[in-house]
Amino acid sequence: MKRAELTEKLLDMKREKGWTWKYICETIGGHSEVLVVGAILGQMKLTKPLAAKAAELFGLSAVETAMLNEVPMRGEGITMPPRDPLIYRFYELVMINGPAWKALIEEEFGDGIMSAIDFDMVMERLPNPKGDRVKITMSGKFLPYKYYGATGNNAEYGFREE
Amino acid sequence: MKRAELTEKLLDMKREKGWTWKYICETIGGHSEVLVVGAILGQMKLTKPLAAKAAELFGLSAVETAMLNEVPMRGEGITMPPRDPLIYRFYELVMINGPAWKALIEEEFGDGIMSAIDFDMVMERLPNPKGDRVKITMSGKFLPYKYYGATGNNAEYGFREE
Amino acid sequence: MKRAELTEKLLDMKREKGWTWKYICETIGGHSEVLVVGAILGQMKLTKPLAAKAAELFGLSAVETAMLNEVPMRGEGITMPPRDPLIYRFYELVMINGPAWKALIEEEFGDGIMSAIDFDMVMERLPNPKGDRVKITMSGKFLPYKYYGATGNNAEYGFREE
Amino acid sequence: MKRAELTEKLLDMKREKGWTWKYICETIGGHSEVLVVGAILGQMKLTKPLAAKAAELFGLSAVETAMLNEVPMRGEGITMPPRDPLIYRFYELVMINGPAWKALIEEEFGDGIMSAIDFDMVMERLPNPKGDRVKITMSGKFLPYKYYGATGNNAEYGFREE
Amino acid sequence: MKRAELTEKLLDMKREKGWTWKYICETIGGHSEVLVVGAILGQMKLTKPLAAKAAELFGLSAVETAMLNEVPMRGEGITMPPRDPLIYRFYELVMINGPAWKALIEEEFGDGIMSAIDFDMVMERLPNPKGDRVKITMSGKFLPYKYYGATGNNAEYGFREE
Amino acid sequence: MKRAELTEKLLDMKREKGWTWKYICETIGGHSEVLVVGAILGQMKLTKPLAAKAAELFGLSAVETAMLNEVPMRGEGITMPPRDPLIYRFYELVMINGPAWKALIEEEFGDGIMSAIDFDMVMERLPNPKGDRVKITMSGKFLPYKYYGATGNNAEYGFREE
Amino acid sequence: MKRAELTEKLLDMKREKGWTWKYICETIGGHSEVLVVGAILGQMKLTKPLAAKAAELFGLSAVETAMLNEVPMRGEGITMPPRDPLIYRFYELVMINGPAWKALIEEEFGDGIMSAIDFDMVMERLPNPKGDRVKITMSGKFLPYKYYGATGNNAEYGFREE
Amino acid sequence: MKRAELTEKLLDMKREKGWTWKYICETIGGHSEVLVVGAILGQMKLTKPLAAKAAELFGLSAVETAMLNEVPMRGEGITMPPRDPLIYRFYELVMINGPAWKALIEEEFGDGIMSAIDFDMVMERLPNPKGDRVKITMSGKFLPYKYYGATGNNAEYGFREE
Amino acid sequence: MKRAELTEKLLDMKREKGWTWKYICETIGGHSEVLVVGAILGQMKLTKPLAAKAAELFGLSAVETAMLNEVPMRGEGITMPPRDPLIYRFYELVMINGPAWKALIEEEFGDGIMSAIDFDMVMERLPNPKGDRVKITMSGKFLPYKYYGATGNNAEYGFREE
Amino acid sequence: MKRAELTEKLLDMKREKGWTWKYICETIGGHSEVLVVGAILGQMKLTKPLAAKAAELFGLSAVETAMLNEVPMRGEGITMPPRDPLIYRFYELVMINGPAWKALIEEEFGDGIMSAIDFDMVMERLPNPKGDRVKITMSGKFLPYKYYGATGNNAEYGFREE
Repeated sequence: MKRAELTEKLLDMKREKGWTWKYICETIGGHSEVLVVGAILGQMKLTKPLAAKAAELFGLSAVETAMLNEVPMRGEGITMPPRDPLIYRFYELVMINGPAWKALIEEEFGDGIMSAIDFDMVMERLPNPKGDRVKITMSGKFLPYKYYGATGNNAEYGFREE
Repeated sequence: MKRAELTEKLLDMKREKGWTWKYICETIGGHSEVLVVGAILGQMKLTKPLAAKAAELFGLSAVETAMLNEVPMRGEGITMPPRDPLIYRFYELVMINGPAWKALIEEEFGDGIMSAIDFDMVMERLPNPKGDRVKITMSGKFLPYKYYGATGNNAEYGFREE
Repeated sequence: MKRAELTEKLLDMKREKGWTWKYICETIGGHSEVLVVGAILGQMKLTKPLAAKAAELFGLSAVETAMLNEVPMRGEGITMPPRDPLIYRFYELVMINGPAWKALIEEEFGDGIMSAIDFDMVMERLPNPKGDRVKITMSGKFLPYKYYGATGNNAEYGFREE
Repeated sequence: MKRAELTEKLLDMKREKGWTWKYICETIGGHSEVLVVGAILGQMKLTKPLAAKAAELFGLSAVETAMLNEVPMRGEGITMPPRDPLIYRFYELVMINGPAWKALIEEEFGDGIMSAIDFDMVMERLPNPKGDRVKITMSGKFLPYKYYGATGNNAEYGFREE
Repeated sequence: MKRAELTEKLLDMKREKGWTWKYICETIGGHSEVLVVGAILGQMKLTKPLAAKAAELFGLSAVETAMLNEVPMRGEGITMPPRDPLIYRFYELVMINGPAWKALIEEEFGDGIMSAIDFDMVMERLPNPKGDRVKITMSGKFLPYKYYGATGNNAEYGFREE
Repeated sequence: MKRAELTEKLLDMKREKGWTWKYICETIGGHSEVLVVGAILGQMKLTKPLAAKAAELFGLSAVETAMLNEVPMRGEGITMPPRDPLIYRFYELVMINGPAWKALIEEEFGDGIMSAIDFDMVMERLPNPKGDRVKITMSGKFLPYKYYGATGNNAEYGFREE
Repeated sequence: MKRAELTEKLLDMKREKGWTWKYICETIGGHSEVLVVGAILGQMKLTKPLAAKAAELFGLSAVETAMLNEVPMRGEGITMPPRDPLIYRFYELVMINGPAWKALIEEEFGDGIMSAIDFDMVMERLPNPKGDRVKITMSGKFLPYKYYGATGNNAEYGFREE
Repeated sequence: MKRAELTEKLLDMKREKGWTWKYICETIGGHSEVLVVGAILGQMKLTKPLAAKAAELFGLSAVETAMLNEVPMRGEGITMPPRDPLIYRFYELVMINGPAWKALIEEEFGDGIMSAIDFDMVMERLPNPKGDRVKITMSGKFLPYKYYGATGNNAEYGFREE
Repeated sequence: MKRAELTEKLLDMKREKGWTWKYICETIGGHSEVLVVGAILGQMKLTKPLAAKAAELFGLSAVETAMLNEVPMRGEGITMPPRDPLIYRFYELVMINGPAWKALIEEEFGDGIMSAIDFDMVMERLPNPKGDRVKITMSGKFLPYKYYGATGNNAEYGFREE
Repeated sequence: MKRAELTEKLLDMKREKGWTWKYICETIGGHSEVLVVGAILGQMKLTKPLAAKAAELFGLSAVETAMLNEVPMRGEGITMPPRDPLIYRFYELVMINGPAWKALIEEEFGDGIMSAIDFDMVMERLPNPKGDRVKITMSGKFLPYKYYGATGNNAEYGFREE
């Protein structure tokens, strides 16, 4: 069984039952909605207790439940550059603003990256008389580039100066 | 003169003078830092008054100042998929989470997109004992897909049901 | 079930019944033909009432009807650059004239874009003794780039000067 | 001399003189603005009389004037898929709606294409209280696919049934 | 049903019956061999009378016959750049000679293209003692680029000077 | 010196002198126009006597003349897929009709290719009241695939059955 | 039936029977091993007598046997650039040494190519105390570029000087 | 000034002086060789004190020294997939073994990644009678995927179960 | 049967039985875990005795067992550049550090490569109070580029100077 | 200085002096012609004594001579897939025959590759009344895939069964 086939099955059940994502997320619980929806869509792993709840909700077999508890091959089945307009707009933001973000983060934090792994994100609706807005708040741990020393694989794992 | 050559010249002066981005943004003022840095890097336009301040700071010619006031061919000179690790992490976030964001936004707002044009963004440092975090707050206007009617190019520009 | 499989089924029924697009659009009604045909081809969403009419026409199951009411992953299953000569000619128009359109729109409207979301379009046959012509009239809302201020995520969502 | 270098020179003069596209098009005259701007940007040819006017306006050499009168290698120097948001939106329209346009044109006109060569286009500003709109009216000659006969290279160049 | 599946079925029948292309083309008749073979391979449309003859020959259902009478999504299922040596050689001819053809056609005809739609082609065997040759004679209508005037969408659809 | 720089120089002189391709081809003589123009554009080699005539016409140095007599790195500097509409139409013909050509040539000649090396081509203007046509006659030697035997590198270099 | 499906069936039988390639090639006979294996893998055609022997060995139907006697769409189903290390090394040899081979062949033979169609190849094991070597001997007919004359499609099909 | 131009200048001086990498790394000191060489080649940043030593060694201007202290746009100027055989072999290792590494790391550590930022690496020569070997020892911090909770942007930044 | 289908079957059984990779590797034994897991995932070959053990564990047919003993088409079914974050980080290491590795290896060993074929690798967990680390030790045989002499295919197979 | 600029300079001198490759190779001596020409074209390294001879012949500076003695970034500046017909034919041979070569080499030698590093090659002219042939004899060391054991980085570096 491929993860994409499991996704297809889960979505068909969602259609058949008329469930909303909100209902699914509340029933499975535990994690943020982005993570639970991501797992249903085949990009995230559900922990064992949550996979069990999902199995109950969707009536899954043992193999299917185990698959939901596996880390999927992330990024599979996704078109890049995105073609769907909603997703493309995020891609465009990264493309156009990436260099400026890099300049500002490096000036503030030094050489390193914002982690996409130790990363948190909340999406909210922001009412606005000119048209409601999508508000996204995210934070990722800054990971400084390690400047390891000439002596090699030492206990310190590098040091950092400016 | 190409915009990339102007960018190169501005960055060389920044290096020579030892200016920080913070200093440049404060001197030019007006817009958010992301926008001003983006303009220096050739991805954004500075309005006339700000372009004038930039011209004063960097000692620019009339042609160069006019160029800063032009909308550039955005996205030019940028490698996609990004190769720089800092920018790539944002790209990865879009790639992995894009489908989940789409599902959640569409359930909340209906058919449409979060605008990448009517869009605001703030970047902050979030102190944290386990390692400081990059906090990004952004909001974009939700633009509903117009479902224009069968009568065509009418005054209403479409209507919207669910 | 994949959206592409639903499309395939709908097209087979169209072939079997000998229906024209005009007939299908009139029966489903409500929206412009471009939107209804787009939904049948898997690129657009039908609102609930229209999806119900389509379900009646094509004899669809609940899952299939729900799928027609979903926003599809737009752009999926489409070859880009287009290879079909009819579609390629439109692509060529954008490729060759894009920079001139950008220059003229920005001079007239300022920094921004023509929305592809708040967008309307009518296609007509223009009789002509030298050979009939395809006439396309379209209008999209101009969306000005927001130049948000240095104070960040403020209530105004930016301001705009030239 | 490369056409791109001529374009660069013409744009620098436009910046230096503070000319608008409107002014340039009125001075050169003759063709629509899309064509004249396209020629300045290196994608179109100016006829001899118009190239002469352009030469006078920009102070061009004989070689440069001759180059403006040449059909350029169209599409050169253009990023595809477009990255600039303004141009990308047109690309997105073709990508998402292409199959529906194909279905509707072929049902109305039969097998063939809308010419991108025998093609006319006007861009207008459409005032609207909810935000002005970009209105584009275009018409292209419909060219039916020739279904030439089994006898080959005959005088008729094919015939056409449905 | 996908067009590719219909193609597969037709080719299997050709193999089973041991038919040659010549036999198929003579039985279906009407058009040139390139067009009939192209339709069997899923790249061309057969007119209704010819589709009927093909249906009789291959024993097709109503849906399959209707599909043969549809304009297919041309170019689908074709590898580009071509990998098959026979097809690649034609691609190579276009790649290497394209710029020279452009220069010569534009000098002779002015700004425009040779139509790939109003286009005729005959392939013949040319006996030669050093090895027989493939002789291809083709002619396409020259389509001049329309230089429409500044007054826009006028009745004349442009004019043309040199 | 790069071949592209030589091409640029030759084209500048053509512009300055106002020479036509016809004049250049007649002056250099010897080969067909496609070959001579191809050599000026950097895709073909001129034999020594013709390179000498070109040198005289364009006033070339010894290094430049030697370069014209070299086989260039063919295909360099050419955009593929072609973007220029005139060249793209030829590409489209190969893409759409390639499989049919393959089927017909192989049925007539057996397994093999039409040579793109031992290849001849003439382009003519075909007057036509409905619009003049571009007529192209080409012939390439058919090269049968060698089915060499199990004994390997033998004197016969293979044999051929059906 | 697709050629890839036939390949899959033939390989499954090879696995089931435990046949070696050597056994298969000897049983089918006639051609070199490279050609016979290539045909089983879907890249080459078997002549009628050899296809008959293959049919006997593998127990093929008439349709399958006819398919083995067809020229396949060569290059289909092959990943390029190659990812398999064994095949990649050959690709690397062409990539790194291609320009040198071109220079040496053209100096020795003049303008032209080594045919990949009239081409023979033998692979041998070369015992060597430091590790056995793969020895490949190949020869392809040199095909000179035809420099056809200005008079066009003449009986001579060009001439050739240096 | 572009970073690539600085790299070119540094390499020319290395050639002129006949310096080895070992000598350069010892003179600049501080970091591991991989990092210092990476900085000279434009992929890493030298801290201020090391950039000063490099400036002394190579005789750099203030702008050049500042550039060496900047985080470069990493990955720029690098061909991917790699073409150089030495680098390609590493790429091949990732391509072929990536899925197995993923399976084993996830089973041992859970959902997460090995950091490429908090990462250390030593390269050594391993003498071996059958031919010396390149020994590479590397260690990267394991970063667990954060499974943030449904309450959103909380102080804990997620929790982790299996 | 395709290798990907066998992989799918093996993974489903692993899920059903709840086996760990460690258990599978210990049961099959013989090789390193990277190799055995790679074979299950379709990128490596199991020797006959190990394939037999795998067949016993998974209950495989003769065809399936033979397939596990075949060298697969390596690299098939793998997305490049990798999208999964865990695998991408390795790719990033090669991309960013490749040129430095090349410089250092060539200075130490001369012209050549580190073999990806005669290659060994061990992965370990390195406990660390700041977060455990993934430790990878690998060694590959250095293969010097052969500088074969002018006399050609001689017994020495080249010599090597600096 | 870039290697490509050195190549350009060397080729210009070759043109100016009218040297053949044969003359250059004989003067520099030592290696096979493929290697020497490859070094001149920027894909190979000349050992110190040969670089010295090349320096004398071409009158090179110390920096240029040092560059000829460096291992270049191989594969740089080469178009892939090749466009030049002569080089493309070799690429086509690998593409079409690669899978068959893989099958035959693996059956004869087991799991492994033919080295592209420990590799020798001779090119000869083979006179033939039907047209001379290019004969290429090459041999590469077979490198067996190492099947290292479960105990890891041991002294044996793996073992090999079938």
